[in-house]
Amino acid sequence: MTLGTTLRKSDFLQWVDTLFQGAGLSAALASTVADLYWRATSRDVGHHDISYLPQRLEWLTSGKINSHWDPKLVQQTPSVEIWDVGGALGEASCHFALERSLTLASKTGLGYTAVRHSNHFLAAWPYVEIGAERGFFTLVWSNTDAGMALPGGTTRVLGNNPLGFGFPREEGWIGSDFCLAYSSLGNLNDRRQKNQSIPSHWGHTAQGLPAQTPEELWNGGIDPIGGVKGMSLAILGEMLTGLLAGGDTLDEVKPPAGWNTHNQMVLSWDLSQLGGLSAAQARAQKFYERLHGLGLQRVPGDRSQEAQKKAQKEGVYLSPQFVQQLHEWAKKLNVSLTVGV
Amino acid sequence: MTLGTTLRKSDFLQWVDTLFQGAGLSAALASTVADLYWRATSRDVGHHDISYLPQRLEWLTSGKINSHWDPKLVQQTPSVEIWDVGGALGEASCHFALERSLTLASKTGLGYTAVRHSNHFLAAWPYVEIGAERGFFTLVWSNTDAGMALPGGTTRVLGNNPLGFGFPREEGWIGSDFCLAYSSLGNLNDRRQKNQSIPSHWGHTAQGLPAQTPEELWNGGIDPIGGVKGMSLAILGEMLTGLLAGGDTLDEVKPPAGWNTHNQMVLSWDLSQLGGLSAAQARAQKFYERLHGLGLQRVPGDRSQEAQKKAQKEGVYLSPQFVQQLHEWAKKLNVSLTVGV
Repeated sequence: MTLGTTLRKSDFLQWVDTLFQGAGLSAALASTVADLYWRATSRDVGHHDISYLPQRLEWLTSGKINSHWDPKLVQQTPSVEIWDVGGALGEASCHFALERSLTLASKTGLGYTAVRHSNHFLAAWPYVEIGAERGFFTLVWSNTDAGMALPGGTTRVLGNNPLGFGFPREEGWIGSDFCLAYSSLGNLNDRRQKNQSIPSHWGHTAQGLPAQTPEELWNGGIDPIGGVKGMSLAILGEMLTGLLAGGDTLDEVKPPAGWNTHNQMVLSWDLSQLGGLSAAQARAQKFYERLHGLGLQRVPGDRSQEAQKKAQKEGVYLSPQFVQQLHEWAKKLNVSLTVGV
Repeated sequence: MTLGTTLRKSDFLQWVDTLFQGAGLSAALASTVADLYWRATSRDVGHHDISYLPQRLEWLTSGKINSHWDPKLVQQTPSVEIWDVGGALGEASCHFALERSLTLASKTGLGYTAVRHSNHFLAAWPYVEIGAERGFFTLVWSNTDAGMALPGGTTRVLGNNPLGFGFPREEGWIGSDFCLAYSSLGNLNDRRQKNQSIPSHWGHTAQGLPAQTPEELWNGGIDPIGGVKGMSLAILGEMLTGLLAGGDTLDEVKPPAGWNTHNQMVLSWDLSQLGGLSAAQARAQKFYERLHGLGLQRVPGDRSQEAQKKAQKEGVYLSPQFVQQLHEWAKKLNVSLTVGV
């Protein structure tokens, strides 16, 4: 029987890198994506992390998504680029959008890059974290297949269209990522498995009653945050991604996974051109301290960054079942996962 | 006794223009701002409209805000401008940010302009509507004095930081504006006066119980939409406005009115440079029709645009009390309000 494993960062990176290369990704792309998985997993939210890896390997090896990387430039202005990534891995695609956006911002102060024909991007967190580390204020948004209902609805018809943002401060950064439904499907599934309670304003059963359990909500419709307001934000997300990029939007991003029809956008400001990076970081540091002063115990990003520091020292724990699953993938892909080499 | 009046557009514009000039605004600025008040009022939401005019006249004539217009450029890159408007009228300041943003976008595809030391901007709607009419996809955001609580809180400590966006389609545009609390103070006050009910998840009484009436909520704390999510969006709003612009943020924008400490930002994409305006409008038109197809009876912007068309034909109604209030202001400012000249 395979045991649960606490993987140090270097081993974690090597495992994810090896598996993605085994599934057909280039060495450079696999290494980039492994770093994103470390960033997402080490913050310990329990979903939108390495648990998605087997699914990605299946998508790549079955040909549901494209393991080759050959993006085509569709539109270009000094501050804007739109790329068609041809069904490539979402993580590789959104990271590419990030790099292009930072490059544009370095030239004009502000950069927007969108990618179309992309896939699920894991979470916005890793991208905005990289942006913050490089001294940029960064906003990332994705459209998704239907994850929420229209306000008061009983079935999922609209993407919950997650976003994230990050602003560097003197020590770390302030930022967050979340979807525009009261709960993401990943979080709701987590609550389902733990049989946790949910607030009754989160959505409706398939019969239109307020859902009382995660199971009822799963089978019904999750409301957008604030009803019409969250729905409007999801529509803004579609505009910023698919509508602007000429990609797929709304029900064109079909469940279960919206293969090859997701769009992401990255918008970034080069703080070094706006009065200097250290001045902006100092302002953000004071802003951060004032948020605490207003009574906010955890400023967005605090918990995740603490978990990341801990993981950096101690590694991340993978359950026996999950380790076995990865070893089975390694065998299938004819690669080997080792520890401590 | 003064009677209630239905004002045609031309008379409405003349009244607002005249009163603002009487309060010290230049003819050009007063005319621009009158147009914004028409756009906000003719959509018939019952708040964030001409009802704010007497307050603005008081602020201008008492010197609480600056009737002179002398903006100073603080930062500049090819796609970014930050201006200090020195405590000028919020509507004039945000309109200026809009014009600068559109000019930048015309040059580089994408433009961001922020104004600091501004004031309350009325609503995002008029600005994004003008952007859409000119063929731009536009996003407007403002920070504000405290209008909501931290999630689960009992007092207002954080700006509800409203935003708005607009995307042109073949017939009209898709867009919306709203704040990030379950209710704006304007809307809640409206409900208070009409003694309407509110959902119990909107916030808490001063004693920390779920508020059951608009009155209880008014005296307690209104929650951000989706709790921590809406709070994070409000923090994003602070970053996009005050933090980026080096202006005031959070509790520096002090109730009751945050005089001279609001910040606004306008971000706009020039659709003519991104595959052509008519192609973008056609995509938006199909997007609009598909939103209806998903079961959405009113796409964001529909109701307001219908009301605006009606007002264009029939004018807008002002109550006897309000007409009298405006006549009193006219007398004080030594100007005259006439109809049908």
